[in-house]
Amino acid sequence: MSWTITETNQLDDMATDRLGNSFLLGNGYFGYRGTLEEYTKEQKTAAIVSGLYDRVGGLWREPINFPNGGFIQVVYQNQPLHAKTSRVEQHSQTLDLHHAVHDRHTVFLTDDGNRLSVHARRFVSSARLHLLCIQYTIESSRDCELVVRSGIDGDVWDLNGPHLCDFQPEVHQPLITLSAISQELHVPIAVCENTVGPGTSQTCVEAGKRILRQIRLPMKANQAQTLDKFVAIHSAKDTDNPLLAGQSLCQEAARVGFDSLLNEHCAVWEARWKRCDLQITGDAKAQLALRFSMYHLLAIAPAHTDRASIPARGLSGQVYKGGIFWDTEIFMLPFFAFEFPEIARNLLMYRFHTLDGARRKAREYGFRGAYYAWESQDSGDDACTEFNVTDVFTKRPIRTYFRDKQVHISADIAHAIWTYSSITGDDTLLLDGGAEVIYECARFLLTRLYYSREKNRYEILDVTGPDEYHERVHNNAFTNWMAAHTFEICLHLTVFLQERYPAQAEALLEKIDFQKDLEAIREVSGQVYRPAPDPQTMIIPQFDGYLALEDIALDELLRRKLDPNEYLGGGNGLATTTQIIKQADVILALHILGEKHSREVVAANWDYYEPRTEQGSSLSTCAYALTAAHIGKVAAAYKYFITTATIDLTGDSIQYVGPLYIGGTHPAANGGAWMAAVFGFCGIHWSGRTLTIDPHLPALWSEVHVPLTIHGQSLRLSVSKHEVTIQAVQPFHGEILVQVLQEVHALPQKEKLSIPLPASESKP
Amino acid sequence: MSWTITETNQLDDMATDRLGNSFLLGNGYFGYRGTLEEYTKEQKTAAIVSGLYDRVGGLWREPINFPNGGFIQVVYQNQPLHAKTSRVEQHSQTLDLHHAVHDRHTVFLTDDGNRLSVHARRFVSSARLHLLCIQYTIESSRDCELVVRSGIDGDVWDLNGPHLCDFQPEVHQPLITLSAISQELHVPIAVCENTVGPGTSQTCVEAGKRILRQIRLPMKANQAQTLDKFVAIHSAKDTDNPLLAGQSLCQEAARVGFDSLLNEHCAVWEARWKRCDLQITGDAKAQLALRFSMYHLLAIAPAHTDRASIPARGLSGQVYKGGIFWDTEIFMLPFFAFEFPEIARNLLMYRFHTLDGARRKAREYGFRGAYYAWESQDSGDDACTEFNVTDVFTKRPIRTYFRDKQVHISADIAHAIWTYSSITGDDTLLLDGGAEVIYECARFLLTRLYYSREKNRYEILDVTGPDEYHERVHNNAFTNWMAAHTFEICLHLTVFLQERYPAQAEALLEKIDFQKDLEAIREVSGQVYRPAPDPQTMIIPQFDGYLALEDIALDELLRRKLDPNEYLGGGNGLATTTQIIKQADVILALHILGEKHSREVVAANWDYYEPRTEQGSSLSTCAYALTAAHIGKVAAAYKYFITTATIDLTGDSIQYVGPLYIGGTHPAANGGAWMAAVFGFCGIHWSGRTLTIDPHLPALWSEVHVPLTIHGQSLRLSVSKHEVTIQAVQPFHGEILVQVLQEVHALPQKEKLSIPLPASESKP
Repeated sequence: MSWTITETNQLDDMATDRLGNSFLLGNGYFGYRGTLEEYTKEQKTAAIVSGLYDRVGGLWREPINFPNGGFIQVVYQNQPLHAKTSRVEQHSQTLDLHHAVHDRHTVFLTDDGNRLSVHARRFVSSARLHLLCIQYTIESSRDCELVVRSGIDGDVWDLNGPHLCDFQPEVHQPLITLSAISQELHVPIAVCENTVGPGTSQTCVEAGKRILRQIRLPMKANQAQTLDKFVAIHSAKDTDNPLLAGQSLCQEAARVGFDSLLNEHCAVWEARWKRCDLQITGDAKAQLALRFSMYHLLAIAPAHTDRASIPARGLSGQVYKGGIFWDTEIFMLPFFAFEFPEIARNLLMYRFHTLDGARRKAREYGFRGAYYAWESQDSGDDACTEFNVTDVFTKRPIRTYFRDKQVHISADIAHAIWTYSSITGDDTLLLDGGAEVIYECARFLLTRLYYSREKNRYEILDVTGPDEYHERVHNNAFTNWMAAHTFEICLHLTVFLQERYPAQAEALLEKIDFQKDLEAIREVSGQVYRPAPDPQTMIIPQFDGYLALEDIALDELLRRKLDPNEYLGGGNGLATTTQIIKQADVILALHILGEKHSREVVAANWDYYEPRTEQGSSLSTCAYALTAAHIGKVAAAYKYFITTATIDLTGDSIQYVGPLYIGGTHPAANGGAWMAAVFGFCGIHWSGRTLTIDPHLPALWSEVHVPLTIHGQSLRLSVSKHEVTIQAVQPFHGEILVQVLQEVHALPQKEKLSIPLPASESKP
Repeated sequence: MSWTITETNQLDDMATDRLGNSFLLGNGYFGYRGTLEEYTKEQKTAAIVSGLYDRVGGLWREPINFPNGGFIQVVYQNQPLHAKTSRVEQHSQTLDLHHAVHDRHTVFLTDDGNRLSVHARRFVSSARLHLLCIQYTIESSRDCELVVRSGIDGDVWDLNGPHLCDFQPEVHQPLITLSAISQELHVPIAVCENTVGPGTSQTCVEAGKRILRQIRLPMKANQAQTLDKFVAIHSAKDTDNPLLAGQSLCQEAARVGFDSLLNEHCAVWEARWKRCDLQITGDAKAQLALRFSMYHLLAIAPAHTDRASIPARGLSGQVYKGGIFWDTEIFMLPFFAFEFPEIARNLLMYRFHTLDGARRKAREYGFRGAYYAWESQDSGDDACTEFNVTDVFTKRPIRTYFRDKQVHISADIAHAIWTYSSITGDDTLLLDGGAEVIYECARFLLTRLYYSREKNRYEILDVTGPDEYHERVHNNAFTNWMAAHTFEICLHLTVFLQERYPAQAEALLEKIDFQKDLEAIREVSGQVYRPAPDPQTMIIPQFDGYLALEDIALDELLRRKLDPNEYLGGGNGLATTTQIIKQADVILALHILGEKHSREVVAANWDYYEPRTEQGSSLSTCAYALTAAHIGKVAAAYKYFITTATIDLTGDSIQYVGPLYIGGTHPAANGGAWMAAVFGFCGIHWSGRTLTIDPHLPALWSEVHVPLTIHGQSLRLSVSKHEVTIQAVQPFHGEILVQVLQEVHALPQKEKLSIPLPASESKP
């Protein structure tokens, strides 16, 4: 049963942080961290609403952490029970990935020998986006009287807060509510709460921003008592009157009842899994890790809106300012495009809605077109600051060149839109704004080019590539390739639109005055410098001069550290003058645009860059997994796949850069795990016309079932060591071509297509 | 009598370092620090030979400090006398600038109450380049016996040594000698010594590299005894057999005798001063400081060879690797070109002789032409390292971009050659290699250009300008202007050569295959981006984006320092993200190429940049002095002039960057002081055809006499507040035009031209 994760007796601080992330619940509208009901800001409780940001003074702008309506604490003989400080006889937390339900079970042993058992089940409703439901059951081993404090805790964990002010705790019997407004934009928010169950209740307010009901609960020995708690979360971005909306939802929830609400919630999740569940035979660990990854993507994806996208740390907190990075387009989008195209469309439409922010950023730096934010929030203006890291030695901020120089972001977005269109066959995204985004991204990159007479080529100078340890480099292979690719997309797009939608094509070119730039792109596109493999060594230099940097072993470099948290990049970072890189760069380029290169080239570069890569970013390991599988290094691929897929299970990720906390969930790794399984091990590649399958399954995997949707058509693939089978779920129009082992087959309308594989020669 | 500097009772460590520099003797072949005879490496004794370098292992390559043949110490009752540790009743050091003679006078008081008076006079012969002469006179207040230890101390001060090995101490009666070879290139060197005088002598050798004669000297009360000591310094770069040459010179010196040697030496210096002495009436302090500056330039100038140039710290030690920087061309060359054109020619021929090194450097970075070394030694290969500064916080090296990115060096050299030709009218430098250097510098800069379609201009990206606190900037105004200027020089030169020397012109173009690049330069020259004054504010941005950096007051920035020696530039330096600059950059450009800009523009930029300039380089204050005089800010100009002219008198210069010692003499400031007086206060400007004189004399200066040589013609100028007079020393050919107050006069052949000035309106 690879559907649940359970952690037993994990109550130390590091585990509290970790489980807060891994047991996160979410419905795309908001995320609720996997903390315990009695926890407060010290244990990083959080309810993060997607797309709602606030800035206080000169501090970083970041998501608003809402008052915690899920607070419940049991008081026994005036002693509040708390899993971290009380005596705990037994404790476990369980997450049911299939239904997105969290269970908590704790047995407290009191000083006088009483056993108090608490079981709390909760879910963030995927059927009603503003609703959190908790069923809280208590049992005592003796007759006694308990006080249960249940309510809304407005004293929240913030990195750069506090973001809320003007707290209004109110009682609207039977509800209690807490309203507030955000500091920067004065957005009203409200959290409403309804606790239904036995006992007699009194309300109290603490410190002006914590409103609690104190429920006096007489207990009989070994007779459980249950409270049902409903919490509604709204902001004025969602509804005119968040308080009224919340009250209405809380009352409605009590009427419907916990069980029915749970049922409708579970139905949503079951339907989701039916569409996307990737089943692995023979490897329960990989199966669970992959489902865990997909669970997290689904819990935070904005299925309900195209005005928000997925932040780099999901909805697990305020880290990285809740910013949307290239993570979404490059690492998460493929999963959604193949499994939930409607969500993929939302993610990309978000970029269209923030296009003006990208235009502003391009202008700010003296360019035209769209230079997308490195850290994008609601407006598309860049939340990324010039100083992102603090020097551990001087405690001073370090100037980093993420915001100014990571120009590949615009190419990444153009690529993602084009990929989406290719996978889904959906032209509406292009027509509804996607084409405009692509054009503006291409325009930006055009204005960023410099021509060298000496070398008779256009170069891209002074950029930061994916490997952020080497800032301000020239001709970063990834960036140049992606920019050249963007120009090609731009030209293909133009042909496509002119053939299929000539009127819209013309209107768009006119609207954004693109004709002249289009001609320029046509003219320069072929002359953009694309760093190529060295004819002898086949190595592609990551950027100009990279191969001349100090060639030091990673462990030797790490031994040079004087402080475990010191940043390896930035001005004086240890890695900056060496070939040690933070993350996949050339290797990622070879994954995305590697079609043009032979496996020998991929292999040579993998062998070169892999030992030089710190894997200091959660975006890195999946690229190494993918490419390793592609070149038949299955064992290495598996190692990197497991690292990627379990990053939020094990908590083995970097938690601090300098003194800066960067913990949270890693949705890009979640998406990367899916890519490693599907594109890597199953070897699935969609060219826009042909589905190629070139599997390199790990030793343990006897068979994999992969549901995919291409051009609106649901397909069921199975890959084993001996055979590839593929079948269309419904009859389809047109032709689907399937290529296995250089042979191309047309997919039959109804029957399953089975293609035997020869005995594997892949390396272990 | 503004010809001598005297320091009394200055014996603490800082003073020892300072006087070692300010009392330096030298003859262009070698420099001898102004330390005392009994001093050893702890007091930074040094005899630095020009153009002779050595590298040990992975350490920095630097000049060889020769064994100290000037060592003399008096031993009284087994107690060696030492000015820093013995009881000193009176002590003074005097430098006669007129004759380059150093006197030292010390009265020691012994424990038993005896007074021992030592007077040592010494000079580094400017008539015999390998010879150091010392006359050492001792007097005792009582009858006693002294031991004088006189010899050669091979245990020398080194920054990155030891540079010598295989020491051979030998006695060749009456001489003692010490031979050795250098570590890297195995160059044999020898120091020979002859002490002539009373007493009986024995020779001893200490630690294998110190050879001393111990002279037993019976003393009568108040009867002085005198020893004459002659030291010869040779290397196999000068002569086949350094040891034999040294022996021969020492014997010859003894034959000629101290007084005659002194006379011939003084005659050389008197002749020099006759040519160049700039006389100020009314300001003895400025007069002395200016003579001190000229003295230092003359003491280290390679009058004898065109295979060496002047290092940034002269011959005062090994700081900055004994490297020749742009200091020579931009800050020292004008003095020599106007006063000693034959020395100026040597300095520039050195660049021709090191052209191949510059070609190698250009190739190393992927360019063509000549990219001159930032720190040039004998071969022209760059001695500048990638890591020049140590982080005070981590003790790790900081990557600096001096070597890679300070491309203006090649433009500076082209400019200097062109300026030399313009001032001297000497075409032979161009024909003997100068033209080739200019072409190759222009070629380098051509290959360094990038064209922006967007802005329809050629840009110079990723450079470090004069202000080294802001590395890797784009379109540094100084660099772009100088590069554009180099292209103009290149085109003018071509016209000039083709008109005057068509055969040589053709041969040169063919020899270096320059025709195609010349055409390219002709094509792009007009399109090189020259950052221009803002139409409103008139400010010229130092580089792209400079004006958007944090605008902080200098003292506030300095208050942010956590360590007094922390480096403000480099990766994380405090200045890097602010508008605080190390040194004149735009202001220097306005000095060199300011003709094109109005005084209002110069004034606006002076007012803007001056408070933002740390004056952290000795090259900076003279530029502020010059430009201040030009715009009539005479008081400010005077302040900066005095700072410049007294830098090595006061010792008020930065001694450490991080833990790195950077002390020594400052010949660029010496040259800058001369420029401030001549170009600044006297307002002398030579356009190539016309001598413009636009004086702004400091309040104290009633009159200035300036000898100048232009086109081989010696001129005597006088500038007072009321009048400018000018007279040719000999009859001349052609026409010399003189412009004062917009009026142009032809200089008469014999008579003095006197032009009255109106009452001054310049600000105080």
